[in-house]
Amino acid sequence: MYPVRMAGQELPRGIPDDTAPGAPEAPVALGVDAARRFAARAFEAAGMRPDDAALIAGNMLWADLRGVDTHGVQRVSWYLQWFDESRSRPDASVEIVQEGPALLVGDGHSGLGQVVATRFADRVIEKARGEGLCLGLLRNSNDWGCGAWYPVRATEAGCVGMAMTTSVPTLAPWGSRKRLFGNNPIAFAFPRRAPARPIVYDAALTPVALGKVLRARAEGKEIPSEWGFRDDDGHPTTDPSAAFAGIIPAIGGYKGTGLALVTNLLAGVLSGSAHSAAVDVGKRGQFFLVIDPGAVGDRAAYENAVEELVAQMREAGTGDQVLPGEEVLLPGEPEWRQFDARSKTGRIDYPASVARSLDKVAARLGIEPIPREV
Amino acid sequence: MYPVRMAGQELPRGIPDDTAPGAPEAPVALGVDAARRFAARAFEAAGMRPDDAALIAGNMLWADLRGVDTHGVQRVSWYLQWFDESRSRPDASVEIVQEGPALLVGDGHSGLGQVVATRFADRVIEKARGEGLCLGLLRNSNDWGCGAWYPVRATEAGCVGMAMTTSVPTLAPWGSRKRLFGNNPIAFAFPRRAPARPIVYDAALTPVALGKVLRARAEGKEIPSEWGFRDDDGHPTTDPSAAFAGIIPAIGGYKGTGLALVTNLLAGVLSGSAHSAAVDVGKRGQFFLVIDPGAVGDRAAYENAVEELVAQMREAGTGDQVLPGEEVLLPGEPEWRQFDARSKTGRIDYPASVARSLDKVAARLGIEPIPREV
Repeated sequence: MYPVRMAGQELPRGIPDDTAPGAPEAPVALGVDAARRFAARAFEAAGMRPDDAALIAGNMLWADLRGVDTHGVQRVSWYLQWFDESRSRPDASVEIVQEGPALLVGDGHSGLGQVVATRFADRVIEKARGEGLCLGLLRNSNDWGCGAWYPVRATEAGCVGMAMTTSVPTLAPWGSRKRLFGNNPIAFAFPRRAPARPIVYDAALTPVALGKVLRARAEGKEIPSEWGFRDDDGHPTTDPSAAFAGIIPAIGGYKGTGLALVTNLLAGVLSGSAHSAAVDVGKRGQFFLVIDPGAVGDRAAYENAVEELVAQMREAGTGDQVLPGEEVLLPGEPEWRQFDARSKTGRIDYPASVARSLDKVAARLGIEPIPREV
Repeated sequence: MYPVRMAGQELPRGIPDDTAPGAPEAPVALGVDAARRFAARAFEAAGMRPDDAALIAGNMLWADLRGVDTHGVQRVSWYLQWFDESRSRPDASVEIVQEGPALLVGDGHSGLGQVVATRFADRVIEKARGEGLCLGLLRNSNDWGCGAWYPVRATEAGCVGMAMTTSVPTLAPWGSRKRLFGNNPIAFAFPRRAPARPIVYDAALTPVALGKVLRARAEGKEIPSEWGFRDDDGHPTTDPSAAFAGIIPAIGGYKGTGLALVTNLLAGVLSGSAHSAAVDVGKRGQFFLVIDPGAVGDRAAYENAVEELVAQMREAGTGDQVLPGEEVLLPGEPEWRQFDARSKTGRIDYPASVARSLDKVAARLGIEPIPREV
């Protein structure tokens, strides 16, 4: 069903090779609602409960609408493969294994991350609303898709959210080529006074998402040398396959690889999950911290300060740009704009490789493929 | 008393220009105990309580012993100048303004950071020991010196520590030259099973500490182009003065400037302190999170997992080095080695500019200068 990995390539664990190299292809437009319905139907067909299937489909289309479409429906086929391999369970529920006044520890029982991490984060958010803050530690979770999703849910309850996850080993400690740590994304979201959207920061510890390297390979393109990838001998490379098999850079060199170790300790070790080289499908750990600004201080003062900060950012973009006319944006602002633009048209131009992968899923599960937009 | 800033230079707020450009000079050896006694005496002479003066002197020599000597006694003269200018108060104490089951909010009343942040962090650690975790938010604090100091104190109580601080504006939002955010250091420490030292991560969001640029200027040296500084017009520069007046880089480009905004929100806005362009001497905010691994899980399991991680790091350094023979180290390990080496000799080779600055302090306060080691 799924293409076999090519010899010599070392794809990160659990990332199937369904993006075979080839010539660049035109993108394929898919309807947002149709893609969401399709994803939910596919996950239901694979054995998920309807509400869980709807939850993950909603998360995926939210990512795609925001332009983070390396983290959306592109991953449907990955997750189905994990079910096939019994590395993740379609019917898993999150279990609370420990609780304190401002603490929740959970076990995701190898369910899909978008399901168990969302259900767990919602419990953490609920507790933070009552107690002022809550730390959440989740073990045996999974790839969580678009990391911004979790702290943004905290902002919908008026709270500040912080989230970290382990991920499969791609980064070597500084000075080594041995992959011990994931690119461990960290995400934060800060509510603003309504109707303004929250400030959203979501970044992996690598200069670019590995999905972008995967996609370059799928589209038969080289990667920019500025991304800083090195082959296994330590030489700079622009070949996406060599980059995967080589030494993946972290932001700030040793500062970034050090942060990978730190987040591995916080999200992996402290949660009691797998850590370091043992992080794998169904064995990720996550760290959540949710803080209610109205409980640790005065909500109006918090909101005023955030708007002052935003005003300073706007001013920094009028006259003080490095390139005249260049816009200075808040973290998350480009994604909200993309979200609005894509929501308005109701369609998303996906890479041909993604559309093809979804068609294969439909054929395999015996469900209707997503109709092509004309 | 203190040299006047040169026209055209924009030194970060509160950093006096006591490191005038000049030819490279030989370092000056000072005794560790003598330097510690001197610093304590100087702060007492400036109006600090003896226990507070001893605390900050201890912090400074701890930084110097670890090799982070841009953050140690080099700063004695800065702080005395802040007292002169009434921007910091030698007799300030930290006040707890809010308390919850896992929360402390404090006001440092513009005392020196090493004093008010240490006293506050110790309260946060104490509470975390009882409750399993504690969030601490401190307003009206100051430059905290060596950031590793605070989470390392948490490890002495068996806890994991995380700390963030605002700092005076040096970083511009991505695409702008307007300085809105500090390089906002973040520090983490993780206890290991005794007698091993904790894993300690302490890094500003810039590729190198500004103190290193200051020192290059003092020593009349150029800075490496790899540090990524740009002048005010956006052109790369190796001139430390132009670098100060220009656009200071963050790790990972927009990822680092985004983290500066995030930490400014967490440590500045959430604590109710000054934030963004208003951060100044006596107006820094700090964010502490202390977690007891034995309260959020099983301590032995935590310790075992940490030792497994360390074993993986050691293995990554035997045979998988990028450069054969190169050592692969834990975060904080180079500093512990320096600490041991300098503790053993009992003396530290300081830049001549630092020794000169301390002699000026002695002359001004009418106290004995530090005797020179022979």
